[in-house]
Parts: sequence; C-alpha cells; structure tokens
Amino acid sequence: MIVRFEPRDPGFDARVRNSINRQTALQTMGITLSGLQPGTVTLEMRFSEKLAQQHGYIHAGVITTAMDSACGYAAFSLMETSAEVLTVEFKANFLAPAAGTTFRFTGHVVKPGRTLTVCEGKAFAINEETEKLIATMGATMMAVQNHSAG
Amino acid sequence: MIVRFEPRDPGFDARVRNSINRQTALQTMGITLSGLQPGTVTLEMRFSEKLAQQHGYIHAGVITTAMDSACGYAAFSLMETSAEVLTVEFKANFLAPAAGTTFRFTGHVVKPGRTLTVCEGKAFAINEETEKLIATMGATMMAVQNHSAG
Amino acid sequence: MIVRFEPRDPGFDARVRNSINRQTALQTMGITLSGLQPGTVTLEMRFSEKLAQQHGYIHAGVITTAMDSACGYAAFSLMETSAEVLTVEFKANFLAPAAGTTFRFTGHVVKPGRTLTVCEGKAFAINEETEKLIATMGATMMAVQNHSAG
Amino acid sequence: MIVRFEPRDPGFDARVRNSINRQTALQTMGITLSGLQPGTVTLEMRFSEKLAQQHGYIHAGVITTAMDSACGYAAFSLMETSAEVLTVEFKANFLAPAAGTTFRFTGHVVKPGRTLTVCEGKAFAINEETEKLIATMGATMMAVQNHSAG
Repeated sequence: MIVRFEPRDPGFDARVRNSINRQTALQTMGITLSGLQPGTVTLEMRFSEKLAQQHGYIHAGVITTAMDSACGYAAFSLMETSAEVLTVEFKANFLAPAAGTTFRFTGHVVKPGRTLTVCEGKAFAINEETEKLIATMGATMMAVQNHSAG
Repeated sequence: MIVRFEPRDPGFDARVRNSINRQTALQTMGITLSGLQPGTVTLEMRFSEKLAQQHGYIHAGVITTAMDSACGYAAFSLMETSAEVLTVEFKANFLAPAAGTTFRFTGHVVKPGRTLTVCEGKAFAINEETEKLIATMGATMMAVQNHSAG
Repeated sequence: MIVRFEPRDPGFDARVRNSINRQTALQTMGITLSGLQPGTVTLEMRFSEKLAQQHGYIHAGVITTAMDSACGYAAFSLMETSAEVLTVEFKANFLAPAAGTTFRFTGHVVKPGRTLTVCEGKAFAINEETEKLIATMGATMMAVQNHSAG
Repeated sequence: MIVRFEPRDPGFDARVRNSINRQTALQTMGITLSGLQPGTVTLEMRFSEKLAQQHGYIHAGVITTAMDSACGYAAFSLMETSAEVLTVEFKANFLAPAAGTTFRFTGHVVKPGRTLTVCEGKAFAINEETEKLIATMGATMMAVQNHSAG
C-alpha cells in the first residue's frame, strides 16, 4: 500500500536532511535518519536509559516524537522548496511496551495535498532477530510558506 | 468542567510522585510536577535549546510527552494501589508554535473506569505575563495489574 | 472555557441554518439545531429505533455524525461568507452507552484560523431529569473557497 | 500488511452476521456486509440522497459509521463467543469528498488483545471503473462480557 510519489522539488533529499539536522530534540533523543525516499522516511533510535518511563521502557512520548518526525519529513519531502512543514495533529495507538535494543520508525504519505498532507507512521521494537510493531500513528501535516500556524 | 474525584487510594500523592521520579525521560526533558489533586495533574517545563524542532520551537513530541504524562498521572491518581497505568492511545492538536520561556501542562480525568480512564490534556506557552493555549490532547489510559499490555 | 468569538460575517446565523437545512443526512437521523452562537452550536436528537447498534443503543456513528456537525457548524459560524467548511479529521471517545430518550450535542471552537479551525464536541444522553456525558470529540475543520478538499 | 488470524470461535461467521443484522442503523443507511474473514470485514453501501451533507456528498458521519462497523466486526470476529464488542474510540481522516455511486469499507485487526483490539479502517468511493481512497480510521475496540462500558 506504500505508493511512490514524484517529488516537486528534485533537491528534496538535501532539504530534508538539512531540516532534520536542525532538530536538537532528535539529537537529544538519539533519533537519526536511516532511509529517505519521496513520501517515505525511516528513522532509528538505540535504547537509552535516559528516555524511559516508570517501568524502564522507552516513554510513549519519545516513540511519538520519532513517529511524528518520520511522518512530518515524509510530507516535507513532497512539498515545494519554499514550504515549511507543521504538525496539525496526530493520533497514536500503543500496542506493546517499547522494549528493545533498537527502534525503527517509518512515516509515509497516504495523501499529499497543496495545503494538507495525511501520513501514517509505525514504530517497531527490535531485539536481536525479532521486530515487533509497537505503535501506529495517523497524522495531518500542513505546508506553510513562513511557518505561521493555523 | 473539571470534576473533583474521590481517590480509591488515600496514599495517591506519594504513589504518583514515586512513579514520576522513576521517569528518566521526564528528567531528561526537564518536565516536573507542579500540581497534584485526585484526577488532575499539572506539570511544568522550562524552554531548552536541546528540545527544539527545526524552527527553534519546542518539538511537538516533547509537548506530547508532557501532556501524555499529565494525563497518565491524572488517571493513575484515581487507580487502586496495585494498578499500573499504560497509555492506550492519545490524539493531540497543535494550535500554535511552542514558543515560550516556560510551559505548563494540565491533565484531568473526564471519565474514570475500572479498566479504562479517559483524560484531556492541555499545553500552555508562558511568556512574561501572557499564557497561550498551544496544544490539546484526548487520551485513553488503562489500568493493568502487572504492566502487561493489551 | 468556552470563549465568545466575534463573527466575521454578521449574517452567520442565516448562513449556518441554510447549510444545515441542506443536510439530508441530519434530516434522516432526526438531528436538529437547538442553539447557535458565534463559535458554538447545539444540536438535538430524539431516540429512534432505526438508528440503533446491536444492543439497542444509538450507533456510535450516529453520535459521531451529530458531534461532527456541531463542530463543523461551530467552525463555519466564524468563517467568511464565501467559505465552505470541510471536516479534515476528528477523534471521538465513547464513555458510556448511548442510552437515552433524547440526546444533546455541543460543538465549540477552541481555536479559529484562516484555514484550519480546531473544535471540541460533546454528546449527552438525557433521561427524564438526568443528563450524562457519553462521548467527546476533537476535530479539525477547514475553510475552503470552492469545496475542493486537501 | 493484513495478517491472517486464527479465530477463537469457529462459529465466528454466524456470530458476526447475527450481530450485524441487529444493527438497525446500518439498515437505515443501507450498509451491508460483503466480505468476512477472521480479523477482516468488508462492507458496502450505495449512494443515497438521504445521507448527504450540504454539498450533496455522503456525510462524513455516515462514512464513519461504516468504517466503525467494519473495524468493530473485524475485532468481534476474533473474540470469544461470550464477548460483546464496544467502540472505545476512533479517529478518522477525510481525504476527499465522498462522491461515488457505491462505497466500500474495510476494517482489519492490527493487534488483537484479550481486552482491547486495535483496528484500521478504510473507505473507498467507487465510480464506474475507478476506486478512490476517501477516508482512513484508527480504532480501539473493547471486549466486554455483558456490555457494561469502561
């Protein structure tokens, strides 16, 4: 069901990487880019004891940060050069504890639009040879010309 | 519309504080407890350059982490002593950029239940004397006896 | 927490009523307007055996139809004369079975915007003298000039 | 990504059909079952002028009713014989106007659970030979033994 999209900006790859590099929150959480195609982004993160909730698993908010970023950059990859991307809203379901040595996050565009882009995200916990779906996201992203919201 | 609830556990205050103190993610992000009543929790956070998105505002995922925690502990405050709390799902709307020197997050219980508790969260950006609503959350929390999900 | 808004269109009342009257789905379900102020809409519905789910209560989808309409018209009441309103997305939580002789639905604007308006909805079941909150909604509405989506 | 599940109740097919037949709301809207496998349900609906919103398209609430029902019965098909199914919450994104002669709705289980089951739904508008994705849903369903909520 993941559709290949044609980017409006042929330089989308550098544009996305430049923007991700400015996200200090991602650096603080150790979330890095591992895959980028038009309309699809993959991020990764190693387990860190500094990002846990009360049971020692990764906090749902950290998992959400990564899924939101994967979705946001999937949308951003299809936008025009002059556009900025803002998160309008997202919804996340948590299916299993975020227990793993590594985590993988995917975001892909379901429907691109001039103003709004709808995306889906997924989070996987990886342990040795197993990979488990632990969370899903549905998100709406917005293209703005000068990052004024709403 | 914020209803006062009767806690089932008279020791809810210490139970909530102990659990929050085990959340290393909250410590990493500088999110602290500033108010606690049965069914209502307030958290606070100072602006940090380490938690920004690409435009220099606080990342939506960090705002979500705090709203999720406020909602989760609002639900947890009304649960039995033996229960743990898990986030089933949440949805967040982002109304304005997270631009502020300080941020305040509230979570309150809309409907408590034996298994599921529905909560609402809000995030406010504070600048000198102004306080602005920047995000809202609707969340479902689950009481489990031995933190096994689902 | 319900803020009074200043309508951009002084003729908002007739504009909202005309649009509601064109909604055959609301007529089929017996959902009618009972209150209208700038940014706030109240709808009502009597119980009907034709709108039940498998246990005899009103179907969650019917409750959602009414909350969506209340939210959409709350947003629409604040829009310019030339704008149409579309639902971008909503999320609903169901707190209790929709058991009642009458139902009341409220929608109010949390944050109006030129393009996007964020709203909250509520559904209440009424039985003789009691009124019970049975569902909540968070919704994003969009102003468009010629009802082309996205 | 649609996983085949093993039903706990070998008589799931009759159990689902019996429950759907009791839903008068689905009959009123002309929503019928067209496909049923363990964890996956397909519903269909013909366009009706009685279910329109103000622009003549099918109302988002009707589309939601069908997606909710598809998701709910996908979850219900995997539950034990003694269980009833309730909608805890759902979130829907609307991608395009519901313009079509026929509509198809799919619901499938993402993660089944003893208490909670997470599902995804989709709505398609069909016009002659084209089929277009017009809405998506993420939903949480709950198994209860005696349809008491929460």
